[in-house]
Formats: sequence, structure tokens, C-alpha cells
Amino acid sequence: MSDRLSRSDLVPRLTDQGYSARDVAARRRWVERRTGTRLTQVGRCALASEPMRGNVENPIGAAQVPLGVAGPLAIQGEHARGTFYVPLALTEGAVVRSYERGMIALTRSGGVVARLYADENRVAPVFQFDGVAEARHFCLRLPELLPELQAAAAATTRHGRLLRLEPRPLGRAVMVNFCYSTADAHGMNMIAKATESACQLLVARGVAGRYTIFSAMDSEKRASGALLGGGKGKQVVAGARLPARLVRAYLHTTPAELREVWEATLLGHLQSGAIGYNGQYANGLAALFIACGQDVANVANSAVGITHAEVTPEGDLYASVTLPSLTVATVGGGTGGGTARECLEMLGCAGPGGAPKLAEIVAATLLAGELSMGAALASGEFVAAHEAYGRNRPPAAPVPAADDRPGAAE
Amino acid sequence: MSDRLSRSDLVPRLTDQGYSARDVAARRRWVERRTGTRLTQVGRCALASEPMRGNVENPIGAAQVPLGVAGPLAIQGEHARGTFYVPLALTEGAVVRSYERGMIALTRSGGVVARLYADENRVAPVFQFDGVAEARHFCLRLPELLPELQAAAAATTRHGRLLRLEPRPLGRAVMVNFCYSTADAHGMNMIAKATESACQLLVARGVAGRYTIFSAMDSEKRASGALLGGGKGKQVVAGARLPARLVRAYLHTTPAELREVWEATLLGHLQSGAIGYNGQYANGLAALFIACGQDVANVANSAVGITHAEVTPEGDLYASVTLPSLTVATVGGGTGGGTARECLEMLGCAGPGGAPKLAEIVAATLLAGELSMGAALASGEFVAAHEAYGRNRPPAAPVPAADDRPGAAE
Amino acid sequence: MSDRLSRSDLVPRLTDQGYSARDVAARRRWVERRTGTRLTQVGRCALASEPMRGNVENPIGAAQVPLGVAGPLAIQGEHARGTFYVPLALTEGAVVRSYERGMIALTRSGGVVARLYADENRVAPVFQFDGVAEARHFCLRLPELLPELQAAAAATTRHGRLLRLEPRPLGRAVMVNFCYSTADAHGMNMIAKATESACQLLVARGVAGRYTIFSAMDSEKRASGALLGGGKGKQVVAGARLPARLVRAYLHTTPAELREVWEATLLGHLQSGAIGYNGQYANGLAALFIACGQDVANVANSAVGITHAEVTPEGDLYASVTLPSLTVATVGGGTGGGTARECLEMLGCAGPGGAPKLAEIVAATLLAGELSMGAALASGEFVAAHEAYGRNRPPAAPVPAADDRPGAAE
Amino acid sequence: MSDRLSRSDLVPRLTDQGYSARDVAARRRWVERRTGTRLTQVGRCALASEPMRGNVENPIGAAQVPLGVAGPLAIQGEHARGTFYVPLALTEGAVVRSYERGMIALTRSGGVVARLYADENRVAPVFQFDGVAEARHFCLRLPELLPELQAAAAATTRHGRLLRLEPRPLGRAVMVNFCYSTADAHGMNMIAKATESACQLLVARGVAGRYTIFSAMDSEKRASGALLGGGKGKQVVAGARLPARLVRAYLHTTPAELREVWEATLLGHLQSGAIGYNGQYANGLAALFIACGQDVANVANSAVGITHAEVTPEGDLYASVTLPSLTVATVGGGTGGGTARECLEMLGCAGPGGAPKLAEIVAATLLAGELSMGAALASGEFVAAHEAYGRNRPPAAPVPAADDRPGAAE
Repeated sequence: MSDRLSRSDLVPRLTDQGYSARDVAARRRWVERRTGTRLTQVGRCALASEPMRGNVENPIGAAQVPLGVAGPLAIQGEHARGTFYVPLALTEGAVVRSYERGMIALTRSGGVVARLYADENRVAPVFQFDGVAEARHFCLRLPELLPELQAAAAATTRHGRLLRLEPRPLGRAVMVNFCYSTADAHGMNMIAKATESACQLLVARGVAGRYTIFSAMDSEKRASGALLGGGKGKQVVAGARLPARLVRAYLHTTPAELREVWEATLLGHLQSGAIGYNGQYANGLAALFIACGQDVANVANSAVGITHAEVTPEGDLYASVTLPSLTVATVGGGTGGGTARECLEMLGCAGPGGAPKLAEIVAATLLAGELSMGAALASGEFVAAHEAYGRNRPPAAPVPAADDRPGAAE
Repeated sequence: MSDRLSRSDLVPRLTDQGYSARDVAARRRWVERRTGTRLTQVGRCALASEPMRGNVENPIGAAQVPLGVAGPLAIQGEHARGTFYVPLALTEGAVVRSYERGMIALTRSGGVVARLYADENRVAPVFQFDGVAEARHFCLRLPELLPELQAAAAATTRHGRLLRLEPRPLGRAVMVNFCYSTADAHGMNMIAKATESACQLLVARGVAGRYTIFSAMDSEKRASGALLGGGKGKQVVAGARLPARLVRAYLHTTPAELREVWEATLLGHLQSGAIGYNGQYANGLAALFIACGQDVANVANSAVGITHAEVTPEGDLYASVTLPSLTVATVGGGTGGGTARECLEMLGCAGPGGAPKLAEIVAATLLAGELSMGAALASGEFVAAHEAYGRNRPPAAPVPAADDRPGAAE
Repeated sequence: MSDRLSRSDLVPRLTDQGYSARDVAARRRWVERRTGTRLTQVGRCALASEPMRGNVENPIGAAQVPLGVAGPLAIQGEHARGTFYVPLALTEGAVVRSYERGMIALTRSGGVVARLYADENRVAPVFQFDGVAEARHFCLRLPELLPELQAAAAATTRHGRLLRLEPRPLGRAVMVNFCYSTADAHGMNMIAKATESACQLLVARGVAGRYTIFSAMDSEKRASGALLGGGKGKQVVAGARLPARLVRAYLHTTPAELREVWEATLLGHLQSGAIGYNGQYANGLAALFIACGQDVANVANSAVGITHAEVTPEGDLYASVTLPSLTVATVGGGTGGGTARECLEMLGCAGPGGAPKLAEIVAATLLAGELSMGAALASGEFVAAHEAYGRNRPPAAPVPAADDRPGAAE
Repeated sequence: MSDRLSRSDLVPRLTDQGYSARDVAARRRWVERRTGTRLTQVGRCALASEPMRGNVENPIGAAQVPLGVAGPLAIQGEHARGTFYVPLALTEGAVVRSYERGMIALTRSGGVVARLYADENRVAPVFQFDGVAEARHFCLRLPELLPELQAAAAATTRHGRLLRLEPRPLGRAVMVNFCYSTADAHGMNMIAKATESACQLLVARGVAGRYTIFSAMDSEKRASGALLGGGKGKQVVAGARLPARLVRAYLHTTPAELREVWEATLLGHLQSGAIGYNGQYANGLAALFIACGQDVANVANSAVGITHAEVTPEGDLYASVTLPSLTVATVGGGTGGGTARECLEMLGCAGPGGAPKLAEIVAATLLAGELSMGAALASGEFVAAHEAYGRNRPPAAPVPAADDRPGAAE
């Protein structure tokens, strides 16, 4: 087998891991040669190469994803207040139009109310003991040890703060959620390091023996029922009341019909053993995350949530999204520069202090998508809309004055 | 409220929905003015604007994501055969290096065996009836109606083929999985249209009355237990046997230690009510999907799967990933041009015929990520690796000859 | 350690495992001596001891559970047709009254329509292979082997018939649902034996190597999402339309209020990551199963299902229960004699041919419980009802002419 | 329809709801006449009829379930200490023998270590608000209201104590876990009443408006992922180390083989979207619950847990069960008299103070069942054991000196 893998088969790392423009170009050419391809567009990117350090290894350029904008979206949050235009990067026709339609309906109805309930992140190491009694003993000692563990964690980071411990036994092992506030960063590296330090202290004290830093009980980047209880990022709720006449004008349906679709699709979730309920969270999340330099893999946990649609006694619609574990950041990762920084600036969220605002904007955006998708299903326009917007050719006839836009509406 | 939303608040659609370079630029400037930002980098993209039609609406440019490459990755699939270099677009330091390390270990061990079990997609409309007896009657009639429904579906698409119907009662409603083969496209629009046509036929025949085209039972872009049984994209399995000495040399751990980490984290999944089990599928999927122009929202369903790690009687490691509902495409959507096309070409998967091959490559790539993450946890290097690669500064000292690369290994 | 456990510590097995009345009494006295207790009532049972062979080992008498009766319950099934009085064994006050109330409301509304969709049972062995390719190869061969496997299975049982195989890969292993019809028995022993025989044939043919007869993928006696798709017992649906005036008269609420409670509690299921949705299936199932000699542990899988409540356009209520994996039997196990047999006879279900009828009765009974519980919550009577019926003292005042009974109702 | 239901169709309630022996007999005869059956054995029960008040309505006698005994089972708990003989009521052959075998192996190995982590019960009302902001406001006020709510709850019960509130938003609604300690009772009626009182106080204060007393988020009598985190009854863990030679002697397998079966069946749980993992919890729970007068419907939540099997570095077996939400009681419900009281006395758990002890005994019993079932699968004896014990005929030949009993073992 060794003949199949020589040093020359390895992707070249070059000087200092190769982040200079020259090194990136050299590596790209190496890949072109090895794979017999031309990577012209990959190389023609606006991103500078040096800042990619810390974001990617073996860089060869940038992937480019079409970027659209949807809005206006009026939000009455505690952090996001005003009217927003939301950048969405994706390659599925009709999705931006779908979100835009929902946003206009929401804005015309007075906007989205958003509230942040919690803002935490966690790492869950697992500790192994000799037996059930020793595991129980460990759990009983944890409360007294908390201050010391908080100090050990604090010594490793300025931004992450250890809030509490949540132990969970499993036989003779104990998994412990180390719960942190992480300011505007997602902060997994930061809190992993802090937790490592705390664990080592437990070992040094003789309180614990063997441990693994991740047990996956924290549900980072995976879907789980536990996420419904929060703990992985922002717990945020967004809701709005839409008068029946505006539902009719902009969404081409009625509150009762929308409610029925909500119910039918919720039962489809039940049938398939899904976690939570939503129409198209993943669409909005992925598009916003790509645009805004978020860690896109966090779509897996962020998409766990619950959409609700109700008809009020007055016959209007009340719709909401509940996102218990939304992972967003405005510092660190991919948020500091490039197109991501520009998109965050479009939302007024770039840099320190922006994360809670971004969370409310994401929630309001998802609500728009839920309404619009539900409406398309209720009105029977779903397939037609994808037909109209999902093809790569200009409209045959002039697109009619879209009646999902206000001039036409009333 | 109407004073808050006038026609001038709307994102301009311009001529024919505005896909000319000039219109895109005009719209971008409009957004800059409205949001008081500069979108310089957003506008400096390699993507041509006209081809964005069908992929995005209200285009203003492109989001750009750092692109790295990981490899070599030897695969012995039925569709993917040879050695591959995999493009990964993301902004989390250490991930490319992590996948690369796993790929090298796998390649040195003889490569990954991959097999495709099934290749389907589905839409699940829900039909409403007067009562339980009528719903049952409908189900009993479906088998005889299949040929007619197949014909109705076939009349709408050349590429999608209706394979079978799977009805599921819920009270007096019936949800029905319409299961299709869709060739190299993901094909949701195609099969939604085909299913719509089939449903209309059922109504015209008087067999069904009210229906909604989506019940969500198909689990498109959401995580669910049902996905473990397949049906949403490719069902693909990849596995490899790694000799203990290579596990030691490249992954810095032993098969038994890796096995233990696998078990500890699997129990963490159980504790949190997760669906399936994996280490970091979402990382690899998101990075590959962004690079290759896939619909990134499909990470939600594609990430449902099961990783397994075993110690063989000989003391070696056998590791595998089982991906029952992996959604990948090589035609349609964002796959036709731009950086996505170049990335697909790097993998030899662009265009018709490429999807099964892409599925095997994705599976093999995820296996590499599982091994590497498990190994980092087992060896205690996880936090240190993220420290080393997750920061935006050049290494203080020359990076040591990486012992996860073959020259050093043996 | 051995001083803690001598032969005299063991429960005496006596002659031929000790099922004679004398042996049972001797064993009971032995237990009384060892535990220093009096087991007077345990010994005063109506059950003969010899027939306990095959149902229990080390018998010492019988547990006795208070038995009530609820009815009348009108059912229009395909197997159950007429009016039934349902035996319920339990120790929770108010439950029988609750089910009775629902039954009367349903009966007054014209009765419950019930339909059986499927009637199967399954065992899911897991086969281990050398690698992913070998596992795939095995799956590809299964279709051609089916007739031979059916013959091998048939040679072990007259009642179980192997219908089909459903393979599911997991890395280099393959789990296979062996799906059977089992007539009126639950038949786990029967189909386990048949499957064992089929597996041995696969080994003898060299098609498979190592296997374990149970992988638990069949979900016998456990809750799982897969059960929603059926396969473990009877898939049965029961529904009824209740006029608004009867909902008011018997259930003290309105269709709309009941609908709201249904929705609120369904969302509570979502929040807690429950499988399916129901109000109190477990109450009715446990009580019926104990009364009718069913395997009570099967409550775990049988309770997986979905209750639905809708308001019709006319303002009436349509309510249903969908039970995809209801395990009931009328031959074998505890169904052949004693109080169980008498209870089955009360339902006209004893012996061969009774199981489908019993399934429909169970479904109709559960529907009654769902309605009544929902109504109690909607009307705010829930706590009061449990207060009134959950105490061990006669009513202080004459119980008022219960308005959930027809004379009072209209 | 009314012709189908006259007053004479109703089950007679008789004097004071009819709990006198005479009334029970009269009702039984009424049922016999209506259904054309003989309920001889149902009537020949040891249970007195008056004490059935509060446990059942419309009583007609008792269901009788064969009762066996398994043991000895040595336990080193905090509450259960010593050697126990466990009563099991059921009708599935081989199960008592299976549990007995596991118990003997555990006892010979030094017994089971059991620990109680938590002991709570909860009710989760749902409160409805006008919008997301009002819901958030409600949650913010809850902490200050806690003392007042505790007082309101305390005024309704001596035994239940309101410990804390756990609010969970869902759109504009808020579900709140009201968490109580309930001493030795399961206490659902008690805490429902206390919670009702607290809710009414919230309404009276103007803090809340509409509410429903149950949202089902508490997961009473249903399976859910949330139960893994505890809160519904006893959180209890039991584990034991079994030397390899005793595993061989009593369980006819090796720690490594048992471990492999554990893994294979755990993966089967993953495949089927099960919650947690176990071999046969439902068997032991149902049998113990019936014997001991527990609410058998609570098997649904109690069966959610996780079994673990490990091979220690010394080659021994460490096995455990983790039961986060085990519902057991020794006062109230069916525990006060009859055969249930006698069975509780066998375990030394009857009456006040017994519930924690009972919880540890249940956990240890389930561990025995897990070991024995795993061993039967590992050794290939599973099908044969059910053959031998699942039939209603005496053994053809003298049963061989069972090698799962100590005399033979060593």
C-alpha cells in the first residue's frame, strides 16, 4: 500500500502552513495538476489569504455562493429594533422570494416581536469511576467544588464564564454539562479549553480519574431532543400577529387554512419521529449562516425548534418560532472579515455586542420563512412558485406586478 | 402601519427580476444606501450574475467562504475508485487538518470501501377523508392505481421515476410517501411537480378529495428517526480496516482507546435523545456542500446516520459510517457553474452520472473526520489541536514535522 | 462470597419445577419463612396452579388486581361489531369512570369506526461481516434466498408465516427485519424459533457467518420511532364523529375547547421529545392487558401512537387514535384460562380468530379515554374528578345524578 | 341512535357507587347477563371489595395474574441492604427464570450497588399569553413568585413540597414544570391539586390568564427523551462487577461476548429511533408493578433508561442500569392492601418510608434481567430457554441440575 502514498501525494503545506497569496496560488496549482482541473474561479476571490489562518487549512481560494437580499423585515426585539434587510447565500431558487414575502407580510403587520431567553454554551465531559457508589460520591461533591472549577476555567479565558454544572449519571460514569456564558463568540474552543483545565484540576485533586473532554451530550452540531431545553447557544422566541386581511393580501390564504397546513405538517413530523417541528428552518439558517460567516455545521443543532400557528379569537393569525439552541456569533470564527463582515454590517451586528441582536434577526427571519412556506402550501402555490423561480431562464412574459408587494396589496 | 412600508422600502427587482451585472450592482448599491454599509467584497466575485437566476433572487453578489483541500483519500467504491483531494469550504480552524489526518490514515490503510444501497427521493402529500373507513378504503385502492399515477408523474419529468407508494394512516387522514428515483439531481422540484400531478389525478378520479402536497413526513431538510430507514437521497455506507500500527502512527491512539471514545460519546448521544450517532458529520457535510454547490440546508437530513468503531479479533480497528439519507446532486441547483463546478470537477463528479460517485466520496470523507475526531479525543489532543489551528497567527516556532504525515510515520 | 449464597438460599423448584397445588403452597410457605411475611391473599386465588406452567416459574399464587367494567361502547369495526363492556384491571381511581364517560359519549354519537391496516410481528437478527462490501453482497443475495428461508421458517411453526425481509445496513453489519404474520398469537417465541432456523440455514449455506438473533431493531417491548411505521402487532385506527351537542352534554366542553387542549398537550409532547402523541394510552392499555391476560410489558410498544382531534366544518368533533404497533393476542401466553379467559369472553374475543376483534376493541377503548381525559382538561374538571374518585371513602353526599349518563343528558 | 343507548344499557352504579360485596356481585351478574358469559373466577378473589374504592370504579371482582418469585438478590444500596426475593406477576414463560438467573449471578458476585440520585415528581401546566413579550415577562416574574406559589401548594397537601419551577417558552405560551418531592406516594393527584391551586393564585394575581393544568411536558405515563434527564419519580442507578469466572459459570458466556451483544442491540436501538437503551426493562417493571400494586401504566415512563455493559481491564464485567424516571410508591394507590401489600412486605417496603428502598430493589431487579437476557443472546440459548419454559407441559425428562444454580456452578 505504501507505494500508493508518498510524500509527493500530500497537499503541500509550504511556509508557515502557507497562507501567503503566493503559497495559496502555488497550492491551488498543485491541486490543479493533481486533479487535472482548472480552478480559475476558486482563485478569483475577494478574500485575502492571510486572514484565512485560523479558519481553514490548506487554503486554495474561496467557494462563492450567490448572495441575495430579503426584506424589509421590521423587528421589535430587545436587541434588534428597526427594519432589516437580510443577506441570504444559497442556490435554491424561490427561497429568497419566499422569505421576502413573509418578511413583507410581517412588516406590514407591525413587525416581529423577538425575545432572548437564555444565552449559553456548554461542553460535557464524561468521567469514569470504579463503580456506581463512586460516581454518586463524585456528584455529591460537585457543588462544593464549583467555585474552584470556576476559577480554573476563568484562568483560561476572559470571555467565557462557567455558570453551573449539570451532572448526569450513566452507570458508573458521570457526564457533566459545564454551562458557560460566552459573550458574542460561539466559543467552543474557548470553553473546551476552560473545561479541560477544570477537569485537570479535578484529577489533580483526586476527585476524578479518567475523563474524556467531550461526551457529545452537549449536542454541538447534532440534532437531539435535549436541545429543545436549550443550552447550546441562544434560546430565542419570535412571534407576530397578522391580521386576516393581510394574510389574505400577502400570503394568499386565510389564518384558518394556514393553521390547517401547520397541523397537517406537524403530524407529518410526528409520523416520521422528527425532533420538534418546523417548515424550513434549515433553508434560512444555512443561507444566513453562509452569508454571515457563521459555522454552518451548527445548522444541525440550530434547526431544532418549534413553529406554531394559531387563529386568534378575532380570526387573525398568531405565528411564532421557538429556537432553543441557536448558535450565532459576531466575533471569532469567520465573522471578522470578508463578505461575512459586510453581511453582518448590513444587519448592524458586526463585532462585540452583536450576537443577541443577530439571534433576534435570525429568529424573525425564520418566522418569515415559516409563514411563507405554510402559505404556499395552503394556497396550493408551492409547486408553481418553485417552477417560476427555480429555473435558469428569464421570465417568458413580464412578471406580473407581484401581489405579495404592498402597492398591489391594498 | 402602512407608513412604515412604502414601495421605496422594497428591494428593487429591476428588469426581468434583475440578473444582469448592472442590475446586480444597482441593487447592491441600493442595499448599501439603505443599510449604510459598504459591500465591496460582496461585489468582487468570480460568479457571473446571469447564471444566478434559478439559484437566488434579489442577487447582490456572492458570499465567499475560505476553501481548503484535504487529501489524499483513497476510495474503493463502486462509483468512486482512486485517490481524491476533497474541497472543503468553512471557517473553523483545525477541521481541514482533522479530515486530512483521517484521510491519510485511511489511505495508508488501503483506502475506504464504499457501497451505495439505495438512491431515492420522496414527497409525502397528506390526503384528508371523511372518516377512518374512507381513509382505509383509499389505501386499499392505491395498489391498483399505481400504474396510472406513474404515468401521470412521468408526464411531468424525464428524470424522476415514481417507484412505489407507501401509505401511512393517521386517523382519517393518509400520508403517502411517493418514492422516486431522480438520477443525478436532488430533484425536489421535479418530484413535487410530479406528485402534484398525481394527486390531481386522484382528485379527478374521485379517489381523493382534499390534500396538501407536503406533510413533512418525507423529512426533507429536517432531522428525524425515519431518515435512518433511508428514502431521502443516497443510502451509502463506507468502512475501512486500519491496522493498529497505523492507528498509532497517524492517529496517536490505539484501536481500543478509539473504541472507548466511540462508546462514551455514543452514550452521550443516548443521554441527550439524539438521532443516530456521529462525531462531526455536520462539519464535513457543510464544508463539502458549500464547496460543491449542494443545497446546504440538506445537511439537516444528511447528518442523520451512524458511525461505528470496532476492534477486530486481530486488534485492528474497523470503522464505518452509515448514511441512510444523504442528499447530493451533480446536476441542477448550484452545481452547474462557478466555484461549485470547479470543486465537483476536482472530484471528477461534475454533471450527469456524478451523483453516486459524489455520495461515496462524501461518505469516505465523513469517515475520515470521524476517525480523526475520535482519535483527538482519545489521545487528549483535541483541545491542543484547536488551539494550534484555530488562531489567526502564524506558528511561533516552525511547525514540527507533522507526525500525521507518512514520512514521519514510518 | 460463597458464604452469602448456599443451596438453601435458592427458591425451591420441587418436583417437575413445582406446579402442583401442594408444591405451590410449599414454595409460598418457604418464601413466607425467608421473608418473615404472611402471603395469605396471594395464596387465595382462583387460578389453578398447573396451568401456570408456561406462564411463570417458581409460582407462589396470584397477584390480584381490582377489576372494573366500562361501557357501553358501540363499535363499527370490520371485526368488532356491536356494543361492548370492557374489563379494566387497575388501581388508579377515576380511570374507569373516565373511560366509561368517553364510551358513553362515543356510543351516543353512533359508535366508533375501527379499521385494521396490518397485522404482523417481526424479529430482527443482526449479521456480522468482514467489511462493508461483504455486507452489501449479503443484502443483494437476500431476495433470491427468500423462498428457502420461508421454507425453513415454515418447518418450525404452523401459525407463523414469513412474509418478507427488510435488511438495514449498519457499517459492516446488517440487521434484517424478518416480518411474519402470526395469526391470533403474539408469537414472539414462535417467530424467534423460525428466525433462528432461517439464520442457521444462512450459515449452513455459507451466506452469513456470525449473527445474534435479536438486534432490538424490531422494538419489541420498547418505545421507538420506528414503531410508528408499524410492524410490531396490529396497525389499527379508530375514529368517531361526535356532534357538538353531545360533546357538551357528555363531555362538558366544546369541540373547539377539546381541540385546543389537544394542541396544547401535543406541543408538550414536542417539547419533551416524546414519540407520537397521546393522552393516556398507557392507562387503558395496562388495564385491558392485565384484565385480558395480555403480555403487559407490551404496553411499552403498544403505547406508541397518535391521537388526533379536529373540529369539522359543521362544528362537530372528529377524534381518532392511530395505533401502529398494538400487540394483542387471544391464544397463547396468559389468554387460555383464569380470569383472563373470562374477560376475553366478555368481549367475545377468546381463542382463535379473536385477535383482530380485540385490536379494534382496544383501539376504540383508547379513543374513549383520550376524549374523556381531553374533556376533563378542557372543562377544568380534571383535578376535581380525581379528587372525587381517587379516595377510599364513600361519597359524603349522594352522588348527583351523573350528567355524563344519558338520562340526564337530554 | 338513542335507541341504542337507554338507561338499562348502563353499568349499574348501585348504592354509594356500589362497593359492597353484594353490590359487586350484583354488578358482576349484570355483566354476565349482558355479555352472556360466566365470570366465576373473576368473582373468586381474595380482595375485599370496599377497599377497592379509590382504586377502581364499577368493580366486578379481580383480575388474577400468576405470581412467581425470583431470588436471592443481594443489594448494597443506601435504602435496600440485604438479600431479597422478588415477586413477579406475569404470563410469559421463562421470564422469572431469566431474572432469577441474573439475580443469582449478581448475588454470587457480591451483590448489586444501588444509588438514588433524585426523587421528584412534576406537573407541567401551560399558560397562554397575548404575545411573545408577555410570555417572556411572565417567565421573568416567576422567581419572585415562587415562595407564594409554594405556600399555595403547601396549603393543599402535607406530603408534596414544591421545590422549584422550570419554565419553557413555546411561542407565546409558557409551559412550566412544577417540581415536587412527594415522599412515598407517586402523588400525581396530590401535586395536580397543589399545582391547580398555584395556577389559580397566578390568575388571581393577574400574572397569568388562561392555562391548562397538564401540557404533557412532564411525560407522565409516556416515553420521551426528556425523561432521561429525570424528574418523573426516582432517578436511580444500579451496577455490579461480575468476575469473568462467574459470568461463565452462571451466565454461560464471557464478559466480552456479553459486551458484544450489548453493542449489537444498542445499535438496533439507534436504528429504530428508540429512546435510551435496554434489553427487557418492560418485562421486569410490568411484573413487579402488577405484583406490588404500582400504577402499571407508569411502565411507559419508567422503562426509559440505559443499560451499560463494560469489560474491565481485568477482564471482568461491569454492568449497570440507569433509570432516570422510575415511578414507584409504597403508600396510596393500590399499595395499601390485598396481594400488593403482601408483595411489598416480602420486600420490606410496605408503607411510609418504603419507596426509596423499592426503587433500589427495582433497579437491581432490572439489572438481573438485563444480564440474563444479554447472556442468553450471547450464548445462543435464548430461543431454547423460551422453548423450555414457555410451554404448558411438564418437562419430558427430569430437568437437569440447572447449572445456573450454585451447587452446580463450582
